[in-house]
Amino acid sequence: MSPQFNLDGEIVPAEEATVSVEDRGFQYGDGAFETLRAYGGDIFEWEAHADRLDRACEALSIDHGIDRAELRERIDETIAANEFDDAYVKCSITRGVQPGKLTPDPDVDPTVVVYAKGLPRGGVDGESVWDDPATLQTVKTRRMPDSAIPASAKTHNYLNGILARAELIDTADEALLRDTEGAVVEGAASNVFFVHDDALHTPSATRDLLPGITRRVVIDLAEDAGVPVRTGTYEPSDVREAREAFLTNTTWELRPVDEVDGISVGGGAVTELLSRLFDELVEERHY
Amino acid sequence: MSPQFNLDGEIVPAEEATVSVEDRGFQYGDGAFETLRAYGGDIFEWEAHADRLDRACEALSIDHGIDRAELRERIDETIAANEFDDAYVKCSITRGVQPGKLTPDPDVDPTVVVYAKGLPRGGVDGESVWDDPATLQTVKTRRMPDSAIPASAKTHNYLNGILARAELIDTADEALLRDTEGAVVEGAASNVFFVHDDALHTPSATRDLLPGITRRVVIDLAEDAGVPVRTGTYEPSDVREAREAFLTNTTWELRPVDEVDGISVGGGAVTELLSRLFDELVEERHY
Repeated sequence: MSPQFNLDGEIVPAEEATVSVEDRGFQYGDGAFETLRAYGGDIFEWEAHADRLDRACEALSIDHGIDRAELRERIDETIAANEFDDAYVKCSITRGVQPGKLTPDPDVDPTVVVYAKGLPRGGVDGESVWDDPATLQTVKTRRMPDSAIPASAKTHNYLNGILARAELIDTADEALLRDTEGAVVEGAASNVFFVHDDALHTPSATRDLLPGITRRVVIDLAEDAGVPVRTGTYEPSDVREAREAFLTNTTWELRPVDEVDGISVGGGAVTELLSRLFDELVEERHY
Repeated sequence: MSPQFNLDGEIVPAEEATVSVEDRGFQYGDGAFETLRAYGGDIFEWEAHADRLDRACEALSIDHGIDRAELRERIDETIAANEFDDAYVKCSITRGVQPGKLTPDPDVDPTVVVYAKGLPRGGVDGESVWDDPATLQTVKTRRMPDSAIPASAKTHNYLNGILARAELIDTADEALLRDTEGAVVEGAASNVFFVHDDALHTPSATRDLLPGITRRVVIDLAEDAGVPVRTGTYEPSDVREAREAFLTNTTWELRPVDEVDGISVGGGAVTELLSRLFDELVEERHY
């Protein structure tokens, strides 16, 4: 069966899911999105994702008028239409078509797309969605500053991350981005954690980064398990010289970092502990 | 007749011009564009626009494989299909659909769209496309830095300009953006010029701005006419306190600035001279 998406409330085969070339999502990347993960047909951390999508739409002044229950229903219908239990789900809301001007009109007829794709279950006894640990490379492209586009909004303006990824050489598969001041902030599509001096470190969300939902869950798990968590300002060398490092995002969950700029780092006891606690949390909530 | 666009080489009615929701142009704003102006059916400064589009696609590593003559043919066909003499034309090239990953694949099947819309002729005896002089407002949103996305590439990541425009209050209709260091760089969709001490000033392209084709034409016209041109680093107060100010872009040509942050500026002798020289250049080349 061809994958089924949800376009403005209707389930359609993926190849029939199209938008006007005049859609502001296409012309300007004028929209917001969330990447979600379904386990056993249920969305992990739904309220946190829905809150973040609300904040992003508010930052872009996209008053889409679709309430949370309606959006969730569309997501559930899309998962059901594909007969997925475990899935990657992406939900996009754009400002839709508005004739003429660049200046946004407050009267919005949004375009709302729910994408879905089957994923391995992961979890305690499952397989990861990633084949291998990550290879990180510090890139020249700097993270878009909050003063230009709100850092906490996940928007369809994703060229910054694409340009970062396009710099990768050899076997590197994730870019390590610095902000305009040179501090490490995040991966192109992930948050970065590392272990140093028996504490878990991650760049502070007071810097310009997108604070991931998985990042927050992992911080909570670490604190509950008595692992000290420090957030701060770091340089690439801090990650290169760490005892362990891993990345987080909704799809990858926790993914160990094998190498940073050609220097071996790898996972270890803390990464393993937190991965196990994360898997247990998923099992606990979704079965 | 409904407007006709060109989608991947085919002329189609605007309402049938659609792209997949999986197009990277829609998902990530992963594409470049040019706004062109046709006078008497012919494109003004075609080579300069085509050069800039090439550079933008190169910066994004979108190897689209469509040569300049082919692209021009599609543009000409689109203008002809609409029976336009004088028109606004926009040409977009995105990375198209690439399954799965954020990391761009070098093998590109691009999406190429030519949009067209009738415009008044402008020129010596014509009417302007703008109704009134511009009202400028200095905004909080800062121009995205070149280190995050190459400043000279005109891309589908246009949220920065949209957020700037969304800040405008009252009668303001163009945002004046500063870079992250606080220097005035450009409008959300225009370049800024002002007259001070008998010279024409415009922010230097060594700062992070998109150096417009019309900006360059106006600088050339001013120099030919013996008007001293200075490019440098300026603050909003320099524009507010100027004797004259105007904006340039392909659609507006030269548009006088009436007010900046509530302070009257207005056009004047230099703006009028350069507007007339610009109109004469258009007439000379396109009839």
